[in-house]
Amino acid sequence: MEQPILDQWTAFSVLLAKISGYREAIGLLHWDLRTGAPRKGTEIRSKTIGMLSGELFKLETSPEMGRFTELFSQPEINSQLTDVQRKIVKDCRKEYERSKSIPPEKYEEYAILAAQTETMWETAKENNDFASFEPWLSRIVAFKQEFIDYWGVKGTRYDTLLDMYEPDLTVEKLDDIFSRLRSRLVPLAEQIAASPNKPNGDILNGTFDKEAQEKFGLFILKQMGYDFDAGRLDESVHPFATGLNPGDVRITTNYLPDNVTSSIFSSLHEGGHALYEQNIDKNLVGTPLAQGASMGIHESQSRLWENMIGRSREFWHRYYGDLKQNFPETFKDVEAEDFYRSINRVENSLIRIEADELTYNLHIIIRYEIEKLIFNEGLTVKELPEVWNSKYKEYLGITPPSDSLGVLQDVHWSGGDFGYFASYSLGNMYAAQILHTLRKELPEFDSQVSSGNLLPIKEWLTDKIYRYGMSETPSQIIERVTGEPLNPDYLADYLEAKYRDIYHLEQAE
Amino acid sequence: MEQPILDQWTAFSVLLAKISGYREAIGLLHWDLRTGAPRKGTEIRSKTIGMLSGELFKLETSPEMGRFTELFSQPEINSQLTDVQRKIVKDCRKEYERSKSIPPEKYEEYAILAAQTETMWETAKENNDFASFEPWLSRIVAFKQEFIDYWGVKGTRYDTLLDMYEPDLTVEKLDDIFSRLRSRLVPLAEQIAASPNKPNGDILNGTFDKEAQEKFGLFILKQMGYDFDAGRLDESVHPFATGLNPGDVRITTNYLPDNVTSSIFSSLHEGGHALYEQNIDKNLVGTPLAQGASMGIHESQSRLWENMIGRSREFWHRYYGDLKQNFPETFKDVEAEDFYRSINRVENSLIRIEADELTYNLHIIIRYEIEKLIFNEGLTVKELPEVWNSKYKEYLGITPPSDSLGVLQDVHWSGGDFGYFASYSLGNMYAAQILHTLRKELPEFDSQVSSGNLLPIKEWLTDKIYRYGMSETPSQIIERVTGEPLNPDYLADYLEAKYRDIYHLEQAE
Ligand SMILES: [Zn+2]
Ligand SMILES: [Zn+2]
Repeated sequence: MEQPILDQWTAFSVLLAKISGYREAIGLLHWDLRTGAPRKGTEIRSKTIGMLSGELFKLETSPEMGRFTELFSQPEINSQLTDVQRKIVKDCRKEYERSKSIPPEKYEEYAILAAQTETMWETAKENNDFASFEPWLSRIVAFKQEFIDYWGVKGTRYDTLLDMYEPDLTVEKLDDIFSRLRSRLVPLAEQIAASPNKPNGDILNGTFDKEAQEKFGLFILKQMGYDFDAGRLDESVHPFATGLNPGDVRITTNYLPDNVTSSIFSSLHEGGHALYEQNIDKNLVGTPLAQGASMGIHESQSRLWENMIGRSREFWHRYYGDLKQNFPETFKDVEAEDFYRSINRVENSLIRIEADELTYNLHIIIRYEIEKLIFNEGLTVKELPEVWNSKYKEYLGITPPSDSLGVLQDVHWSGGDFGYFASYSLGNMYAAQILHTLRKELPEFDSQVSSGNLLPIKEWLTDKIYRYGMSETPSQIIERVTGEPLNPDYLADYLEAKYRDIYHLEQAE
Repeated sequence: MEQPILDQWTAFSVLLAKISGYREAIGLLHWDLRTGAPRKGTEIRSKTIGMLSGELFKLETSPEMGRFTELFSQPEINSQLTDVQRKIVKDCRKEYERSKSIPPEKYEEYAILAAQTETMWETAKENNDFASFEPWLSRIVAFKQEFIDYWGVKGTRYDTLLDMYEPDLTVEKLDDIFSRLRSRLVPLAEQIAASPNKPNGDILNGTFDKEAQEKFGLFILKQMGYDFDAGRLDESVHPFATGLNPGDVRITTNYLPDNVTSSIFSSLHEGGHALYEQNIDKNLVGTPLAQGASMGIHESQSRLWENMIGRSREFWHRYYGDLKQNFPETFKDVEAEDFYRSINRVENSLIRIEADELTYNLHIIIRYEIEKLIFNEGLTVKELPEVWNSKYKEYLGITPPSDSLGVLQDVHWSGGDFGYFASYSLGNMYAAQILHTLRKELPEFDSQVSSGNLLPIKEWLTDKIYRYGMSETPSQIIERVTGEPLNPDYLADYLEAKYRDIYHLEQAE
């Protein structure tokens, strides 16, 4: 790199590090609010978070950011950059242009409306009152439609929203992917529903001491290779992971007195997110690339650990003895195989966040299809409950008895997060595809899991995925690691094999 | 206030609230570092704190700050302000001018040197090697001398340093105050040393379960009126209190396995600091006045609770039973009176932070006199050990066997904190003077303490001191509350009465 360019890059790096510092501070303020900040300080705290977020936004849309990203985008200069530098410039420029394209007063109006609409949503859900919520959500949709025009439409209008969460994936690609997935999962769910060989969920009932739950959770996290010198485990109402910096990636869980699997699987899930961020290459620290590649790739890493490893027969072959030792009363007459089957029960249920590994994807496909109807086909908010209920009937065979248990169940839309849901199911598909490669490249995979030798798995994932952070796009990662683009058949294959065995299903007729 | 001025004030308030927000964020980042941040994240964390502190400094010295404080200082505009607004303008202007008076590159050079000198101090203390530390400390002193010239000398040169921590108090006043105090405390310490009636410290020896210590500490804090909805108790190596905002004032303690009184008195001490900040008037929130009036006044509130209340016979009349219940083994044969006497042992010792209520002030007077010699009389750093040792001999009757146990014991000077030590002893004097008024105005004081009815005391302190925050100067507070300026006799009277009783001393000859 020529010296004057190098000097400019150094100055740009200072701006990027400052942005990272603000993110770390805001992350800690949030973490603290959710893990034990005193009640009486939360109002001022929220204002402080708002103020610092405003300062961060100013940096990301500052004239310097505009100048640097324009400079480094010039072909003759861009060609002197490394791949990582080019990705930084591209992402920052995209974010800059997107933010700059909306008039600030318009965005502020929207931010206030979104906060109010979330409050309205809470009340509407509580009172099963979609009618009162409808005008609010309609205004949010109208804003989003306006924003799409500001941002510029590439492909369909809904593509513009999807692009915010999962770059590379378009409506065209996702239509194909989700329809292939749906065509295999709907019949599988029907076969399971018809199967007489149902696991017994009652064996999981019991009363579970909090200290014992915590002890077991810590043990499992250590087994996964979660580094407690670069993180910590706390409690919060809703479990989450937050990477303040790669040396400080925290997770939380929630101990339920009558359900031990909840905290175990949330620890495996958040632990998966955390392993990713703890193992990002140190050279990316202080840049916007020191985070997960996308929502979908991040979710693939949590679900790989939670579901593919944590709900496998091999995993419990190794760890069921430890669980039993911690809760001897509850599990004294329960066999490992019965435990394994019961944590893998499939039920066509109404609520997404309670869904199993299989039907979860159908909940997501329904949301994807509805969002697409809103933004590409002009479906009105008024029509949502009817469309929602008919899709639940069609894909899951059940009709919500109320909107609270139906279209009102998720917070996302009230906050304007359209295009986000797809990432959850993409996570499952990425995970299954990565698992397929992992099994090929680590032929000892099954025996490693069943002997609790999990570190080689963490190392493989570090080498293939974690260390890259956001320096590649989701599709680059998935193609480099697995040799082909996202293919939903891996998830369908995985689920079919798993549930045929658990539910003793016939081979597909 | 005229409308245009009001508009300017509103704009100024936004700047002040932003400054408060940065302080809150930096405060939380520090708190987190000291209470459990993962080890591997601390290096980046320190950089983040440095970056945000730099941003805060920029705001405090920004052109807007200059413009606003200049505008509101104009007599015709200043006269339209409330007292509180005038104090805000005055403090901000003072800080602005002080910061602006030093060239930034000079200040940066100093900041780097101070950080290095702290590291050198650690090594020098460890190796009892004053000679290697001497050139570093000399450079710090040279910088401070230069800064005094930049800041401008009012009174003596040392006055300029004192003014940073305890406005209103000058060398002239402190010389008088400290010499009066010294003339009463030195003979008292001598009488005590000669007394045959020594409390038995051995009765405090034992092994103390951490959970039981924590339980007792939480109980005492609740008794004081510490609001756990506006704070929390954590552990750290060195106990501290930090007010993030008045609804979030946190304290920490350190549980020693072989010493139960350490965590009790640190909780009372930090609890006293915290009561102050929790009860600052809500109208001051978001302004620089939402903090303690000065280091000395802050310390008076911690020491009032720790020493005047927490080491009183009445206090343990009420709480010794609870302590005994928590630690039945250690205290089963110990009477309340013996416990009371043993927590009030006086010993002429070498180390300030381990000193008792009485001799602590002599440790401070020595430091005050030495600092004054450095800045007003040209005492060189080379001469410090000799002067230090001779003063310890003179006031405390002991000679440090090594510099590590003498002149190298405190970190303050290596970081450039000259003028700070006086505040500790001022805290004791303010506290005794306030206690004198408190006893007059709450005639039930003794019986309230001995029955554990501590809330009226907290309410009196809130009404007289806490709620004002920094909206009055230390001397305004002390004169309003007690009707006279700072008077060291109250502390001397208090200590004489207390120790004559405990050590069965004759009335002064
Ligand atoms: Zn997740
Ligand atoms: Zn203190």
